[in-house]
Formats: sequence, structure tokens, C-alpha cells
Amino acid sequence: MAEALSPSAVEAALARIRRHVRRTPVMAVEGAAFGLADPVSLKLELTQHTGSFKARGAFNNLLARSVPAAGVTAASGGNHGAAVAYAAACLGHRARIFVPTVSSPVKIERIRAYGAEVVVAGERYADAALLCEAHARASGALMVHPFDSPFTIAGQGSVGLEWEEDAVDGLDTVLVAAGGGGLVAGVSLWFAGRVKVVAVEPRGSSALHAALAAGGPVDVEVSSIAVDSLGAKRVGDLVHMIARDHVAEAVLVPDSAIVEAQRKLWEGLRIAAEPGGATALAALLAGAYRPRPGERVGVLVCGGNVDLAGLASLTGPGSA
Amino acid sequence: MAEALSPSAVEAALARIRRHVRRTPVMAVEGAAFGLADPVSLKLELTQHTGSFKARGAFNNLLARSVPAAGVTAASGGNHGAAVAYAAACLGHRARIFVPTVSSPVKIERIRAYGAEVVVAGERYADAALLCEAHARASGALMVHPFDSPFTIAGQGSVGLEWEEDAVDGLDTVLVAAGGGGLVAGVSLWFAGRVKVVAVEPRGSSALHAALAAGGPVDVEVSSIAVDSLGAKRVGDLVHMIARDHVAEAVLVPDSAIVEAQRKLWEGLRIAAEPGGATALAALLAGAYRPRPGERVGVLVCGGNVDLAGLASLTGPGSA
Repeated sequence: MAEALSPSAVEAALARIRRHVRRTPVMAVEGAAFGLADPVSLKLELTQHTGSFKARGAFNNLLARSVPAAGVTAASGGNHGAAVAYAAACLGHRARIFVPTVSSPVKIERIRAYGAEVVVAGERYADAALLCEAHARASGALMVHPFDSPFTIAGQGSVGLEWEEDAVDGLDTVLVAAGGGGLVAGVSLWFAGRVKVVAVEPRGSSALHAALAAGGPVDVEVSSIAVDSLGAKRVGDLVHMIARDHVAEAVLVPDSAIVEAQRKLWEGLRIAAEPGGATALAALLAGAYRPRPGERVGVLVCGGNVDLAGLASLTGPGSA
Repeated sequence: MAEALSPSAVEAALARIRRHVRRTPVMAVEGAAFGLADPVSLKLELTQHTGSFKARGAFNNLLARSVPAAGVTAASGGNHGAAVAYAAACLGHRARIFVPTVSSPVKIERIRAYGAEVVVAGERYADAALLCEAHARASGALMVHPFDSPFTIAGQGSVGLEWEEDAVDGLDTVLVAAGGGGLVAGVSLWFAGRVKVVAVEPRGSSALHAALAAGGPVDVEVSSIAVDSLGAKRVGDLVHMIARDHVAEAVLVPDSAIVEAQRKLWEGLRIAAEPGGATALAALLAGAYRPRPGERVGVLVCGGNVDLAGLASLTGPGSA
């Protein structure tokens, strides 16, 4: 397990999933778009299958591990559930996704549309996760963890590998949103100190920040506009271990900065990001991370599963 | 003038405007996303300043020509007006934009937000254009034509130059939407037969198709969902001359295919395109252009100035 957690695990993941995921575009944007002095490299991972980076980890699990006839299972009312359902459908496996009763009917319908069996049960995510584990034990189905699995982490890390190859002017620092932390763990595993990795969390959902401060995963209260994608109560041991070694800083942003980031992305660039997808940019807007002059900063726009009508109410007709 | 209309005019335009426009991303998308056998190269020009390619032609006019103290002027209630207003503001020039009374208040407000003086007058575009010409004559202001100027055409063509450099697997054919035709003329001028250029127009707004059929610009009736960006009644002489020499085909698509293209771009890729921005893709979906096996096709997504609430009503929560 420890051996698997190296940059070469990320390379192996990308080689495995390459045929199934999109190489998402990288774009250099002038700093003025975000009130900064220097250009920013955006990796537009929201154009990935299922609208978020989660497809990478899902495919890596399903391709690297042996999938039994009982298929795969996951607990998630959001992007992870959609990604596992999509990957299973592409690869011809059955999928059963457990979603808590609080999930929006639109998201439940989306998971079902990928062909998965959806079980709506349990008040909160943790309840759905227990039901999912019970199903995996009883049926033998392969459970895909949303963040704390080496396969999930290495798969998500492939976004960093692509980014490094495609950012023509190079990268000194990348800002990556964290919920359960699988994405930022994977990206930091890839860069392994060569590029500074900054984790960005909403103030109201700071499981990684809390774990790094406490020296291990701890429970946090969760309340943020980005809770639908970043609202993990606790990171896992694996995520903590990697982040402790490879994440340079974990910064916090207020929800107001996340909304402002969604606004700037739409009004200035016609990019429709979900709150979690705009959270990394929020760190620059709020000054939670202040680049030094000339620092080549990258921002990962990691998800676009936003309700367009809701986004319309946040944004104006465009500025630049 | 004739000498200016060569690929080197496009190179000169890009060299001139490079500091002011974004190099928009190019993305390879698997054919399955659009029901095709082979991958498609998307150039995401909707992430350009002001949300469309029009910024290129606007900057090229203002940088290549001498701008008097009276500033610049244009007639447009849409993307061209916004682009001229934006470029003028960036370069420190005054701008007066004439917009017909039928233009949406949102678009008018957007042009004003860039700092331009907006004159709302004239029932239709042609009336606003006459007022604009009169203003230019009386004040000496530089008029920026939306399509039939060598500076406009060469500026828009720069999108083709970037695309060719950035499409890693190469391009055999590119599909480009046409309204007044400045964009497709510029792109075809750049490729000059090395890459096949296909112009795509809505069935209800086919000024270029009609001009090529008639052997010269003719008036057409205009009625289409994409009329706000592609609704020219007639192409210009310069556009016709270039298109006659360098555009391989001009195909027509029904409005239903344009809506379907907007849907596929949002549901499959989280790209929020305006109707005109989705029109080139519509030609593949409707079978108006059928690539041969292995043909490396590019589709220009040329604008994202869409009302998000309206787009929400067209689309579902996502499919791939």
C-alpha cells in the first residue's frame, strides 16, 4: 500500500484510465481577470465526463481492481456517485449507489440516468455509507471509496500529471479544493514537492485543515454553499498521511468568496462552475493565498455540476 | 487592400492583438459525445474576452488603424458592440455604440458597463448602422465594421492560426458558424485550402449560403434562434470574395439542431454556449456535414453570451 503511494502510481493510473477520461484543457488567463498581477493557469476539469474530476478515480478503481459479478457500489448523492455509475456503465458492470434521503431529486435522477440502481436511504451521508458497506459485505460487490483509497487518490492525481505537461509556462504552485481530500492528496502525490500544492476549503467545511492541525483526522461540523461536493465531515487516514507530507498549506475561504469566484468565472470567462469547482479560485480572490510577484499559479476548476438557473441568479451578463 | 487579404495579414493581426486577447483552449473530445466515430477538436473561443471571438476583430481594428480623438463607433446590439466597447476601454479610447431599439436591455447594459456611450435608436440593425455612419462622418470617429472590413476579417482569422498550432493531432476540416461571415472568412483566409473550411448557418439566416449561390451578396429573410449573433441580412463583398475562394462548403442547419447542440455541450461537457456558439456543432448532429472515417474535424464554439436561466430550461442535469 505504501509503495503504491508514489508519483509512479499516478502515472500508472493515467495510463490505465486514459482511454476513458478526457484530457481536459489548460488555459492561461491574464491576472487582471482576478485582480492579480500575474497570469493564472486554469485546468478546466469541469469538462470531464460526469462534470467533475471524480470520473478519474472511479475508472482507476474499476480498471485496477477485480470487479465481481455483483458489480460495484458506492455511497454518494453527488459527483462521486455519478462518476462510479458512469464508469460502471462504460465498462459493463452493475452499479448500486446508496444516496442519503437529503440528496436533491435532480442528482438522484442523474445517477439513475447512467444506468445505476439507486437506493435512497439513510438521513445523512454516513448512514448511506453504512448501508453501502453492508451491501458490499453481503453481495461481494466492489466498494469504491470517494477519497480514502489508494486507487481513488492515484486516479484523481492524474489531473496533476496532465496539467504539468500542458501548462506551457510551467507551474510553481497549484490551488486545489478539498472536501474528503482525495483530489488534493492525489495531486500532491504527483507533484511531491516539485510544485507547491495548496489545499483550499470552505471555512464551514474544513476537515483537512482540522486534520493537519490535530495531527490526524477529526470530525468537523459542516455548513457551506459548497457542501454538496466538499462537505466531508472527516478526511481519511491515507489522505491525511499524504497531505501531511506533500500539501504545503491548507487555507480557508468564506462562502462569499466562493460565490464571487463563480461570478468571476462566468462573467469574465463564460465558465459555469459549481461552488466546489470555484473554491480554489476563491483563495486568490479572498487573499487566503497571496502569490509572490512572478509566481506561476495554477487553479483547478474541478467541477461544473451547477444548477444553471441558480447560477443565473448569482451572476450578471458579463464583464470581460 | 487585396494584398492585405492573405494568411500573413492574419499572422500580423495575431502579433498585434496577442497582448490583449486570450489564447483560448483547444480540447479533443471523443466522438461518442456527439454520436460520431472519431474525436472532434473543440476550440473554446467562448472563453474569449466579452464572451465571443468578436474581441479579436475589434482589437485588430483599433490597433492597426489610427484612432482619432473622437474615438470609435460601431452599430450592434450584441457581441460586436460589446467587443468594440471593451477594446476601446482597454486601449483608452472613447466609444459610441448604436444599438437598435429591439436589443435586449441586458445586452445594452453590458455594452454600457464596458464604459461606452450607448445610443438606443432605430428599429432594426440597418437603422442603427445608418446612424452610426452619420456619426462617424460628422465626428471623424473610427467606424468598426462587424464583418466586412479587412481588419475585422484578419483579426477573427487569428482564431484559426491558434487552433492549428494547438490541435495536437492536426485538423483536416473545421466547422465555423457564419452570420455576416467575418469569422469564417478570416479562418478560411488563414487556412487557404490547407484545411477544409465549412461554413454553418441556420436555415433561417443563410446570407452566406445565398451569396455563394447567387455569385454575390443578396438580401435574405432572417428568422432563427441564433438571430442575436448570426442574424445578418446580407454578407459584404469582401466576405463573399474570400468565402468564394476559400470556404469549401456552406451548410444549413435547423434551429432544432442548434438547441440540441447547446444541450449536448452543457449536458456532456459543461460548456454553456449561446445559439450562435453551438451552430457549428449542429452541422455534425444534424448530418448537414458528414465526416468521412478518420477525418480530423474541428468545431469552433465561438460564443457563450447565453442567458443561463434560458439555457437551464433547455437542458437536463447532465449525461456524460
